[in-house]
Amino acid sequence: MQSSCKVELISVGNELLLGNTVNSNASWIASQVTSLGGSVARMTTVADNLDEISHAIKEAIQRRPAFIITTGGLGPTFDDMTLRGVAKALRVSVRLDRTAATLIQELYTRRLPNRRVRMTKPRLKMASIPSGGEAIRNPIGTAPAVRLSVGKIELFCLPGVPREAKAIFKDSIAKVISSRTGGLVFVERWVNVRGIMESTLAPMINQVMRRWPDVYIKSHPRGVEAGGRPHIELHFSTHGSDAGKAKGILLLAVRNLVDRLIEVDAKIGPVSRDV
Amino acid sequence: MQSSCKVELISVGNELLLGNTVNSNASWIASQVTSLGGSVARMTTVADNLDEISHAIKEAIQRRPAFIITTGGLGPTFDDMTLRGVAKALRVSVRLDRTAATLIQELYTRRLPNRRVRMTKPRLKMASIPSGGEAIRNPIGTAPAVRLSVGKIELFCLPGVPREAKAIFKDSIAKVISSRTGGLVFVERWVNVRGIMESTLAPMINQVMRRWPDVYIKSHPRGVEAGGRPHIELHFSTHGSDAGKAKGILLLAVRNLVDRLIEVDAKIGPVSRDV
Repeated sequence: MQSSCKVELISVGNELLLGNTVNSNASWIASQVTSLGGSVARMTTVADNLDEISHAIKEAIQRRPAFIITTGGLGPTFDDMTLRGVAKALRVSVRLDRTAATLIQELYTRRLPNRRVRMTKPRLKMASIPSGGEAIRNPIGTAPAVRLSVGKIELFCLPGVPREAKAIFKDSIAKVISSRTGGLVFVERWVNVRGIMESTLAPMINQVMRRWPDVYIKSHPRGVEAGGRPHIELHFSTHGSDAGKAKGILLLAVRNLVDRLIEVDAKIGPVSRDV
Repeated sequence: MQSSCKVELISVGNELLLGNTVNSNASWIASQVTSLGGSVARMTTVADNLDEISHAIKEAIQRRPAFIITTGGLGPTFDDMTLRGVAKALRVSVRLDRTAATLIQELYTRRLPNRRVRMTKPRLKMASIPSGGEAIRNPIGTAPAVRLSVGKIELFCLPGVPREAKAIFKDSIAKVISSRTGGLVFVERWVNVRGIMESTLAPMINQVMRRWPDVYIKSHPRGVEAGGRPHIELHFSTHGSDAGKAKGILLLAVRNLVDRLIEVDAKIGPVSRDV
């Protein structure tokens, strides 16, 4: 079964485009969305540039996912411009948000208990959010996250610092996604296969998927990368409303493929992971 | 200086959207493009789905970068459909390519020296490339890469296996990008700063960048992630046609920021990397 709760991720940050930083935020959020029964439909990475951000947001809105989640570009520096980009895409203004300002003031007061905290321009910047948006508390860092409804689409803007993005996702986004997927669960299983070539395996995968159309099987050639013995990693997955049933179907598909492999006398490595 | 040689990366693969695999290909290619004097303008990740791939290619073409580089979806299985997606976007047909077929046949003959290698359907699939395309030898794996010209845009399709993507990039793409950037070089320098908040640092960064508009400075809050002491990592970078001059300008900007920091008595950590 395919999840109908589609999520788009937009990562903002020159460091990603320069190749200095691997986009671990995107894969972490994607793994969370998947296990909550949702389905990431697209990931986009754009520069710290107002037009680029605004275009990416507009394009994602046109594809009508259930959720759009951005990461990065919420901080105090000149090139943190995700919220202005979102406002531009939605044709709304950016305004100083009282809740956001209070959250920021509280954080600085905690960090600098002996000093009078001035709300300087860079700090007020982090409290300026698109009209109609709601500030979400950042339990770790300074910049609050933002939640906005665009028609039926829920848009969340998270900071780029991984620890902050993760904490806010767990605190404030997971339950919203969960409520939209209607309790759909994702089940998966990995099987390692040796002694067979991917091109020989391909028609068998087709046969199994034709018999269990809800099960998706993906093959990944592995081992050569790490200098190890070459093998093929097979990833079986499906979404279902009943975890037990979904696991049962997955297992049937796994067994069927294994049976076909035994017929051609391929060596099956240990089942490497079972979720 | 900003590079005018824009590159778009399109990553194809459900495993990326499921969150099973971190997109290390995209950041590796981006770092190579950057050091060759080019500039990655956007990264897009889409599913193993014909329409999704075709849309992403069409959208990238409309933005008119100098290069589009795809990774993934060149293998023998049913869900390897990047080349069909490219063909659909360009409204051309996919046809069996003699060079590609020979490359594949040679590879299997090398791997299975004692058997007669049949060009089965999955193997012929890897040799079927969009009309007008040119097969590029894969020195490591099975599926050849593909090069196509779309007006002034050069489109390259690479396999998703990182070792194969890297080898083909180095062998066949790096020199083409280099020839388009006109010998532009990228220089960068990292400086760690402690004892100052990003919001206090923000106006200083603005002042330095106003004075050296060719230098780009990005601040990254670090340290908390790894449980270490919090600090801010400053990344200074610029493109220039003369490496010595570009480094000189970068150093002036670094020194100017350090001078400003000394004035506010911030602790400067060791310069962490110098490229």
